[in-house]
Amino acid sequence: MSTSNPAQMPKNITLTQRLKKYLPIMNWLPNYSRADVTGDLIAGIIVTVMLVPQGMAYALLAELPAQVGLYASIIPLFIYGLLGTSRTLAVGPVAIVSLMVASGIGQFAPQSLSETLLLAVTLAAMVGSIQLILGILRAGFIVNFLSHPVLSGFTSAAAIVIGLSQLKNLMGFDVPRSQQLHETAWYVFTNMSLMNVASFAIGVGGILILLYFKFGLGKHLAYLSLPKNVIVPLTKTGPLVIVVIGTLLVWGMGLNTSADVSIVGTVPAGLPPFTMPTLELETLQALFPIALTISLVGYMEGISVAKALASKRREKVDPNQELIAIGTSNIASALTGGYPIAGGFGRSMVNFTSGARTGLASVITAVLLLFSVLFLTPLFTYLPNAILAAIIIVAVANLIDVKTAIHTWHYSKAEFLSLAITFVAVLELGIETGILIGVATSLILYLYRTSRPHVAVIGRIGTSEEYRNVLRYETTMQPNILALRIDESLYFPNATYLEQVVGNAVADNPELEHFVLVCSAVNFIDTSALEVLENLNDTLTENGISFNMAGVKGPVMDRLRKIGFDTHIGQENFYLNCHEACESLATE
Amino acid sequence: MSTSNPAQMPKNITLTQRLKKYLPIMNWLPNYSRADVTGDLIAGIIVTVMLVPQGMAYALLAELPAQVGLYASIIPLFIYGLLGTSRTLAVGPVAIVSLMVASGIGQFAPQSLSETLLLAVTLAAMVGSIQLILGILRAGFIVNFLSHPVLSGFTSAAAIVIGLSQLKNLMGFDVPRSQQLHETAWYVFTNMSLMNVASFAIGVGGILILLYFKFGLGKHLAYLSLPKNVIVPLTKTGPLVIVVIGTLLVWGMGLNTSADVSIVGTVPAGLPPFTMPTLELETLQALFPIALTISLVGYMEGISVAKALASKRREKVDPNQELIAIGTSNIASALTGGYPIAGGFGRSMVNFTSGARTGLASVITAVLLLFSVLFLTPLFTYLPNAILAAIIIVAVANLIDVKTAIHTWHYSKAEFLSLAITFVAVLELGIETGILIGVATSLILYLYRTSRPHVAVIGRIGTSEEYRNVLRYETTMQPNILALRIDESLYFPNATYLEQVVGNAVADNPELEHFVLVCSAVNFIDTSALEVLENLNDTLTENGISFNMAGVKGPVMDRLRKIGFDTHIGQENFYLNCHEACESLATE
Repeated sequence: MSTSNPAQMPKNITLTQRLKKYLPIMNWLPNYSRADVTGDLIAGIIVTVMLVPQGMAYALLAELPAQVGLYASIIPLFIYGLLGTSRTLAVGPVAIVSLMVASGIGQFAPQSLSETLLLAVTLAAMVGSIQLILGILRAGFIVNFLSHPVLSGFTSAAAIVIGLSQLKNLMGFDVPRSQQLHETAWYVFTNMSLMNVASFAIGVGGILILLYFKFGLGKHLAYLSLPKNVIVPLTKTGPLVIVVIGTLLVWGMGLNTSADVSIVGTVPAGLPPFTMPTLELETLQALFPIALTISLVGYMEGISVAKALASKRREKVDPNQELIAIGTSNIASALTGGYPIAGGFGRSMVNFTSGARTGLASVITAVLLLFSVLFLTPLFTYLPNAILAAIIIVAVANLIDVKTAIHTWHYSKAEFLSLAITFVAVLELGIETGILIGVATSLILYLYRTSRPHVAVIGRIGTSEEYRNVLRYETTMQPNILALRIDESLYFPNATYLEQVVGNAVADNPELEHFVLVCSAVNFIDTSALEVLENLNDTLTENGISFNMAGVKGPVMDRLRKIGFDTHIGQENFYLNCHEACESLATE
Repeated sequence: MSTSNPAQMPKNITLTQRLKKYLPIMNWLPNYSRADVTGDLIAGIIVTVMLVPQGMAYALLAELPAQVGLYASIIPLFIYGLLGTSRTLAVGPVAIVSLMVASGIGQFAPQSLSETLLLAVTLAAMVGSIQLILGILRAGFIVNFLSHPVLSGFTSAAAIVIGLSQLKNLMGFDVPRSQQLHETAWYVFTNMSLMNVASFAIGVGGILILLYFKFGLGKHLAYLSLPKNVIVPLTKTGPLVIVVIGTLLVWGMGLNTSADVSIVGTVPAGLPPFTMPTLELETLQALFPIALTISLVGYMEGISVAKALASKRREKVDPNQELIAIGTSNIASALTGGYPIAGGFGRSMVNFTSGARTGLASVITAVLLLFSVLFLTPLFTYLPNAILAAIIIVAVANLIDVKTAIHTWHYSKAEFLSLAITFVAVLELGIETGILIGVATSLILYLYRTSRPHVAVIGRIGTSEEYRNVLRYETTMQPNILALRIDESLYFPNATYLEQVVGNAVADNPELEHFVLVCSAVNFIDTSALEVLENLNDTLTENGISFNMAGVKGPVMDRLRKIGFDTHIGQENFYLNCHEACESLATE
């Protein structure tokens, strides 16, 4: 079986090939050219400009101090630049992971900042370890169990949760944590009077400017006939612009004291600290479910972006090496005062568009960020939290994915159901429970579907060798032969159904002498179904009807032979395809 | 789609047909003949002879008073005789259900007999209600999720647990309850000195006699040239024989006082009492998991036996009506001082062999048992518990199913794994957890398998229209065409794998101009796979390779059309089958 599988890796690979596989930098560094430098340098600078405010904003979303978001963007980026197979993926703090970190740490209700920070690095260490282990075990396939509808429902709901979580920063009053969306929404609505008007005005102003950068600026710059690779990066500087405006406003007018506008405050300057996760078993156990969710969701987000970008340039990403790269980066984040990171959609697009050619772009971003935390932190003191909230709200508004929901509705009501259930479950039961319910729903729906497979009575199309559904095509068939095609693997959820379907089909055809089970769509027969087939054969034979099987595939036939099923049924009753069976049976 | 489904029921059925469906007695009673009477009467008497000692023994196994097993065999049998579609299934107390009842009641550690009895009837009411509801909802299919290997592993482990649980009655000393097999075994081993030698001797004697009835008596009677339908029933009287011998021994020698042999004691005479289940929410919640397990496992056991027996006589059983019948019987058991029942293998075989023709055999058994509880109970007072233990041990020894384990091992290692995991989990983690783990394992293994489907490069066999795996058959193919058959529905667990396989196959064929994805084994395409197909189409087209699909089935094509996927790919790129695709592409 495996020899026919084109997905297999060749077995005899040299040491150099192996090294290149695990250290992708060896693929691009020896061929590095001057042309690459320009692209990587420009991309590195632009991503830094985006990442500084975003890093702080997402740290705020994770309910961590602003500098944690910056620390998480230095050494981890450097590591990813060396180990990642994607040349353009920009890793760092991202919105959904930050939300999950807030939820994971929140369950402990930490009493001190140091406790909070310890939980953040512990979570990063756990996420990194899980990803690293999955990568080494080449178990990247497990993210495949997150179907698109489930992911889409999850992302949309998470975006709404994130948006709402920032209302408190935007409006300047405290909102108690709740897993349930409607409670939070109701609290904000009924406590509107607590709103800090100055904060709110700054935040809304920030949102409007960001929306202009996003939807208006591009068109206006196009009138100036600027090239596209200048326009796109410029439209991404919105966050930096509102950070500067917001900071100057608060600092100039003293709004932090006069109007009680909440600000970031003192951000300590200096190198990222060396930190160690806790090894307390109880804490690790309590963090495990959220760490697992973050590992998978974070990886999933990154690998999707990386694949999309790689295919545009005919490059390849290796899913398992990506797990190793992002896992190591997360462990690095844990050791340098950061928190869990992932490959982000927005920054990666910017990195790609502004001309990043290799992982060096990430390394440049890391160096520039290091410079920022060493020398620029005093500039962030008067940055109002409402500006960071504005950045988050505009960023996540993109993630609400109505298009996929509509598309799924039209294609498959069952898949839409799993999308909708995930969406509601995440909003009302929380992130982890929500995604678990989503995955379970999609699996159960699939199993339910396979338990009642489509079955077609088939007949010959004209004089061809093709036999298809008699209800869809003009077909002919001898009255004493019945050919039934069953469109599913035969296994325990549908074994009984098979028995019933064949029983009824035979009962409805009194003239029947030969029954042909067409197995072209049967990819697997398990022991439960095997027993049913044996019973069917015995019952039909006793009633004077011959039992035949056509189009059984190689791997399925191998298994049947191994236990002597072919001799039990009679080897002469197996046919290459339906045509051969019908021709042979008609002459009997 | 549904019009092509031979499993569908006709819609316009008359009232009489409907009545016959829900009251199967109407099918046989009007045609009842004198020939039927003899068979039913003899079978009814023989089953009674088996059921009296077995009913008491299984009640003991369920840790209930002996009479509960008798009460459960009166009204429920009568009801099943009227409602059951199987004419030969003998319902009543069975070993595995009794074990589960013991485990369900044991969790409450009831302090009084009345509390224990209340829990027993409550459990019967819950089991009955669940079965009745499932039957009315026509949801009998859900038992299909119990695969044969899981059931086999479960049954073997349960048989061992049951056997061990009877050691205490056999050896006459108390063994504390434990979920873990090795703990129980160790306790018995280390406390061997507490053994009551007289009890043990009676029990072992009983076992030896039963084994003789089972393996020796039949052959010896055959020497006397007795007809088979006399021999078989006679060999089943073993339990009655040892009950009589054991009772006479204890009564005659006064062993219950002189040697402290444990006996059944006074069994109250009289009609089954009228009982009501508790409606306490907390109790119902705690009992729910075990009630659900009993409903499914009990039903599964019965329906398997009923189907096997019906097929021998060309009769039919209706799975949903069977749920209604056994559900109503369990509710009847709850109202008349019984406990949960099911269709048993051993007694049904005897019922069938001794000539039962209709449900009247069950009704006769019920009447005879009613007579026993009214007048014969004083005879059971001196019956030693060791004899009942002997009956149970010999009965369950049959259930240890090594044959299926070996067969499964040869056919499929993955299915053997789910059998083995279920077996160990039931032994070490208990019955409910064990069966849940088993079901989960079998589903996960199935999903894992479908996530890495078999893929074959196919070519034309000779001059036929059949295209098969190039590695298995002598085939021919034009070098600029690659036809790949993927042997699985395309859905989220394998969507990424599909992308990878096609990508590698294309990369390995530099001469390629036309790619054909053969979908004869694809029974379903979900939105995740759809996106992959769209990407593949775009990527290949950009590289100057045409993307074609062949043999897409009707129901799959309908869905693709609904969202315009066919026009996106180009309708001219869809072919009826691989042959048509290759012929057409070769001429381009």
